[in-house]
Parts: sequence; structure tokens; C-alpha cells
Amino acid sequence: MDLWFTEYYTKNARFSIKIDKPVISLNSEFQRIDIFDSYAFGRVLVLDGYLMLTEKDEFIYHEMMTHIPMAVNPEIRDVLVIGAGDGGVIRELTKYETIKRIDMAEIDKLVVDLCKKYLPQTACKLDDPRVHIYYEDGLKFVRSKNNEYDLIIVDSTDPFGPGEDLFTREFYGNCYKALKSDGILINQHESPYYPNDALAAQKTHNRIKSIFPLAKVYQAHLPTYPSGHWLFGFASKGLDPIDDLSSNWSMLGINTRYYNKELHKGCFALPTYVKELLNNA
Amino acid sequence: MDLWFTEYYTKNARFSIKIDKPVISLNSEFQRIDIFDSYAFGRVLVLDGYLMLTEKDEFIYHEMMTHIPMAVNPEIRDVLVIGAGDGGVIRELTKYETIKRIDMAEIDKLVVDLCKKYLPQTACKLDDPRVHIYYEDGLKFVRSKNNEYDLIIVDSTDPFGPGEDLFTREFYGNCYKALKSDGILINQHESPYYPNDALAAQKTHNRIKSIFPLAKVYQAHLPTYPSGHWLFGFASKGLDPIDDLSSNWSMLGINTRYYNKELHKGCFALPTYVKELLNNA
Repeated sequence: MDLWFTEYYTKNARFSIKIDKPVISLNSEFQRIDIFDSYAFGRVLVLDGYLMLTEKDEFIYHEMMTHIPMAVNPEIRDVLVIGAGDGGVIRELTKYETIKRIDMAEIDKLVVDLCKKYLPQTACKLDDPRVHIYYEDGLKFVRSKNNEYDLIIVDSTDPFGPGEDLFTREFYGNCYKALKSDGILINQHESPYYPNDALAAQKTHNRIKSIFPLAKVYQAHLPTYPSGHWLFGFASKGLDPIDDLSSNWSMLGINTRYYNKELHKGCFALPTYVKELLNNA
Repeated sequence: MDLWFTEYYTKNARFSIKIDKPVISLNSEFQRIDIFDSYAFGRVLVLDGYLMLTEKDEFIYHEMMTHIPMAVNPEIRDVLVIGAGDGGVIRELTKYETIKRIDMAEIDKLVVDLCKKYLPQTACKLDDPRVHIYYEDGLKFVRSKNNEYDLIIVDSTDPFGPGEDLFTREFYGNCYKALKSDGILINQHESPYYPNDALAAQKTHNRIKSIFPLAKVYQAHLPTYPSGHWLFGFASKGLDPIDDLSSNWSMLGINTRYYNKELHKGCFALPTYVKELLNNA
């Protein structure tokens, strides 16, 4: 059987992975959901034809979304996660005993149900008693919140389809309002390389920096996302990701495979062309 | 016309780029050489079926091979480049007026001739009067040198085919001998992600660190190489890439699109899984 899943990074560049067997394919109210078993990457989750995660390298994305803010402010107690139906961010957050509440607003219950059943590597902590799942639109959910969270993590799909609202000025404004005075907003920030992704990264940065007094961008090597060069946003009401980096993180004994404290500082050092992209708007 | 060039990263993962038109395809004494025009990446050079460079992102690789050592030791005068027939490393080196001599040992004259003709973006400085091209095997060339170079850059193909000898202990030992007391060795160091590349990176690091008192590894985001996560080696007889970073580099006014001084420090901060790979040998 010669079965390949292909993602087009542009219409002229594509990445393909060989599929051992399809696990499940369904249409939810919001999107098409496919789960496959692959030879090189273990099980993979695909939404609307875009690869969301592979078991081989999901740790990179989920660690970088979570441990960067947690190492800056170890006092984080109340967390809101938007999207993240696969559970990977939740798994990383539950490693911190200091976190008291994790609200998760995921629009698509079917993603959560399927990940619980078929992707236990990421969905293993969704039943933690601190986790409260709201099957709601993230934009609407955050609109009603005021001064409630220390950290908001936006683990969205791309800025089209169900994830589109999570890239708007209105949404970032609502996140600002929902955050306490030490609040941090982390978001997946697309890639600087292929033209459409780069444009989305540029627009996103401009919107966030028009609302938050501090808005920085960091990067990771994510081999199964387009170009392998992925960006994340760190925005806050004042906390700086490097100047305010806590000296205590290593003492927590949290096990990571990508994140470490030197990398924390290094990942904010962006290539010149990426800095120019983000600043020329 | 629907023409695609495909590179298999493993037998179960592949990357494909759409070709506008083939420019030239020849077999040299050493390898098969193909040059294509692509839609998304401009002109591309392929050796033995492996993508060597694209006009869109070759600056990343060539800047990271060159400016990292030059910013550590601005006194570099005599440079040996091994491989690098496309001329990209030479182009970056010739930006430094302080460099007096650039010897280049490239085994395959046909690569140089074709790049001069079809890839002027990289091959534009091969006629600089400081450049001396020796069409010789790199291993043999360096064997006869003693205490002659401030910098050796090994811009080789992968550790099989014509580039194989350039990954041996014997070769690294000869490089050590050919370097002066402040000498630096830079080499392309494969990738930490796909299993065969990771094994090559691990072996290479072990060989280099058994010979050089200082052996570090740094990384860059190279979207058209396997996984997009590429490693480079920095080995020296004593100079440290961060502690000895010169404060004067920015004053040279050298134009770069990827490299900058903050990134210089950041790129040595490796992910935990990469550090473990390199240290567990």
C-alpha cells in the first residue's frame, strides 16, 4: 500500500509523509478531522488538510507554548487556553503544581473526543481536576472575562477557517482585558518563510503590538510545520521574557526535551530578515 | 507541465518543489549535477539528487558558515574553504577586506564551472584576486598543510559519496594541524532530526571533539534542508564563540539578512534533545 498525506506549503512546494494506515476521518460541525498512523512520525492529526501535530515532534510546539511564560512568571495561577483540543498544552501546564485553574475554550468538541480516544500522548491530562473545558468560540469566551487570568495561551489553527477570529485586533483586545496586571499572552504566530505565512506573521505582530505594551516574538525548529521555522508571540502588560526570567525554573525539576533555560534566551534572537518582516508593517 | 523535484528525507517523508524548467543536467567525474528553475525558490542546485542550495534561502547557510567565525576573530587573514563550489561561502568571505588569502579546495571543477555560468548569485566572487581555487580532494589538500590558516570552512556534501572523507577523524586531525594557534574550524554538521542525519551529526561531533580542545555546535533555520533544522560545528584551539565574540563586528558595516550579533549568541543555545544527542555517544 503506497498511501501518502501531502500538505502544500505553497502551490509550488509540498511535504508528504507516508501513511501506514488511516485511523479515523470525520467531518465535525466546524472542520474535517483526520487521524493517521505514519511510519516516520507516529500518529498524526490533520485538520482541514493541514497537519496539526505528529507524535514525533509535538513536544517542541507544546513545550515552547508553555514553559516560556511559566519560566518568566512562576506565580501563574489562573490560565486560559484557547483551542488546543489535542491536549498537548494542557499536558505541559499540568506539570506545574502551582497552577490552580486551567480554563480551556475549544470550539470543536469532536476534536477533543477524538484526541482523547486516539491521541493519548497529548490528551492524557484533559481530565485533570484543574482543567475546565468550555466548548465555545474562543473569541466569545474571552469577551466576557475581566482581569481573571495570569496567562492566556492561544493554540489556534491558521488564520482562516475556524481559527480566523483568533487573529483579530478585537480578540487581542479582549485578551488584554481578560489578563491581570502581570498577564502574559502567548500565541502561535505562523512562520516567516513562505509568503502567505510571513504576511500572517507580520499582521499578527502588528495587531498585538498595537494593544500590548510589550510584544516580542520567539522561534522554534518545528520540522513538520511549513518551512520548519515557527514563530510564537510573547505579549505582556510589562513582564519581559528575558529580563524577568525567573532564576528558579530549573529547581522545579520539570522534564523537557526541547525547552531549557539557555534556549529560552536564545529563541528570542531572530534572524535579521525575520526582524525586518515583523517591523516593516 | 507538471514537473516536480523530490528529495526523500527518509523513505517515508519527502519534500517536493515544482520546477519551471530544467537548466542543465550533467554527470561529472564525481557526481550527477542538476540545475533547475523553480517557482517558489528561484534557481536550485542538486548534487546526486540532494538539494544543495536554492536562490531563495542560500543566504542563511552561507552567512552562518562565514560570519560566526569572522565575528569571533576579526584578525583572520588566511582562510581555507573545502568544497563550496557554488561560491556562496566565498562571496561572504570577500566582504571582509581584512582577509588576505582564500584557498579553496573543490574536488569537482564542473560544479564550479556550472555555478559560474548558471548561479551568479553565489558564484559572483570566485574571480576575486584573493581566491585561489585548487581542484583537488580536500582531504589530500589539507594533509600537506601546517600552521597555515586562521580559519577552515568545510562546506561539504553529506557523509557519503564525494564528501565522505570530509567526515573522518583523519581529516579533522589534518585540519587541526593546518590551523594556526588561534585557528577555527567550521563545518556543516547535518541535522538532529531524521534518524540517519542525527546519527551523522552525533558521530561528527564526537570525532571533532576528540581532536579539538573546544568543539561546539550551533543551529540555523534552513527551510529547504531536511527538517529545516541544520547544525554547524565550531571547533577551535581555544577561541570560544561567545566569550571571545568581538565587539567590533557591527562597525564593519557588513550587510546580512540572517546573521546578527544577538542571533550569534542565540544560535549556540540548542534544544535539550539535540544536546543529549550530541553528548550521548
